[in-house]
Formats: sequence, structure tokens, C-alpha cells
Amino acid sequence: MSVEMHPIGYVRHDSEDVPRIYTISDVEGILVIDQKYAAGLSDIEVGQRLNVLFHFHKSPEFSEKYLKIKPPTRDRKHGVFSTHSPIRPNPIGLSVVEVLAVEGCQIKVKGLDMLNETPILDIKSEIRPGH
Amino acid sequence: MSVEMHPIGYVRHDSEDVPRIYTISDVEGILVIDQKYAAGLSDIEVGQRLNVLFHFHKSPEFSEKYLKIKPPTRDRKHGVFSTHSPIRPNPIGLSVVEVLAVEGCQIKVKGLDMLNETPILDIKSEIRPGH
Repeated sequence: MSVEMHPIGYVRHDSEDVPRIYTISDVEGILVIDQKYAAGLSDIEVGQRLNVLFHFHKSPEFSEKYLKIKPPTRDRKHGVFSTHSPIRPNPIGLSVVEVLAVEGCQIKVKGLDMLNETPILDIKSEIRPGH
Repeated sequence: MSVEMHPIGYVRHDSEDVPRIYTISDVEGILVIDQKYAAGLSDIEVGQRLNVLFHFHKSPEFSEKYLKIKPPTRDRKHGVFSTHSPIRPNPIGLSVVEVLAVEGCQIKVKGLDMLNETPILDIKSEIRPGH
């Protein structure tokens, strides 16, 4: 069984060096969403945090040798599912970013850790515990 | 352009009524992961929180009429990307669960909001802010 995904947009920024993970990123940029999804963007508000799911489009194909990898901040290999390695069985990334502005189908955000031109698969507003 | 995903395992539980969202769920069950990914599960620990990406395998196909939907706890329609609606352009769900036990390729967790037999696409350990 397989599931086919299609990008809903892409990430645009001009930082040459993005941090390895969103929790330590101040990089600003734009989530450019396809015009056909415009109505789906309503109610996204400045200050909100968004879960962004994206395609690791520059990663090599996954194989057994990537099941254990050494994350940059750790001193030994870890199982891939204990990490946010960009080389995974399904090449989906997850970042949490803060909304700075919304203008039509462009969402200006802060906290990017994706490469410029990364295809976006989904956006979900972050849910506060208990809600 | 499209991206093809393959499940790495599935969710198993016997609750007939799962809560609408993980933040209010105490449902326990098992993430049953394919044996070929066993090494990738190392370093997942009891007490840890995991981001689980999964396929909304029972959802109808997305179309324009689902761009704005009324979430159960809100009083009017919202854009799909402001919600965790199971009917989305790319049918990927995100839940955060707590690890209760790990035994081989079975991870016992608490906080499930997926249907029994939901295909799992990815697991990532949750990252604490600043790490």
C-alpha cells in the first residue's frame, strides 16, 4: 500500500545557512501556498504557531544504513525515529514556526529550518494542551 | 510532482471511541512497527513524547468543499489549515503520544486519537524548545 502526496506550496527564504532544527531558528521567510488552497488559509493569525509538514526533497533515498545515525549534537548513533534526521523511511519533515504576517496565499513566518524551495505538504495550527 | 509514502507500521488499540484530538486523550495502545525498521527504534525511551505522523486512511478524498469546515468545538467554519480536520489536501495526521513501554518493534503509548489500524508514516521524538 502506498500514499501519494502533492505539495500545497513551498518555502521561500534567502538564508544561506539554516539552523539544524526549528527550536533554535530565527530565520524568517514565506510559506507560499498554491492559490487553489486560498480559502483553507483563513483564520491563520499573526502570533499563532503552525505545524508545517514538508518534503525532504534534497535527501538521498533511505536505505538500511540510515536506520542508525549520529545527530550533530549527540556523541553516538541513535535510531532514526529518535531523531529528526532528514534521511528517513518516509521523507517528511516537521517544523513549528510562528506567524508574522498573512497576505493572501503568503504566510510570513519565523523559525524556519528548511531549505529554500522546500515543498510544503501540510499546515496545521498548533494545538494547546487540553484543547 | 508527487511524493510516494509507504507505512512503516500501524496503530493497534481496542477503544471504540477515540477522542477527537490527542491533547485530551488517555487512550492507550500499541504502535506496531515493521520488523525491518527495528534498529531505527533504538533510543526511544519510556516517558518520552513522540510525534507520530499517520495516514488518514478512512477519510474521503479531499475536494474544494472541505477547504472550510466547522471543527466540533468551534461555532463557525474555519480554513482547513487552521484545524486538524482529517479531510485535508494531503491526508497526513499528527499526534503527540507518551511512551509507556517499548518491547521489540511494539511501542506502548498513551494519548492516541487515531482509529485502530491507522497506518503510521513516521515517528520523531519530540524536541524540547532550545534543543
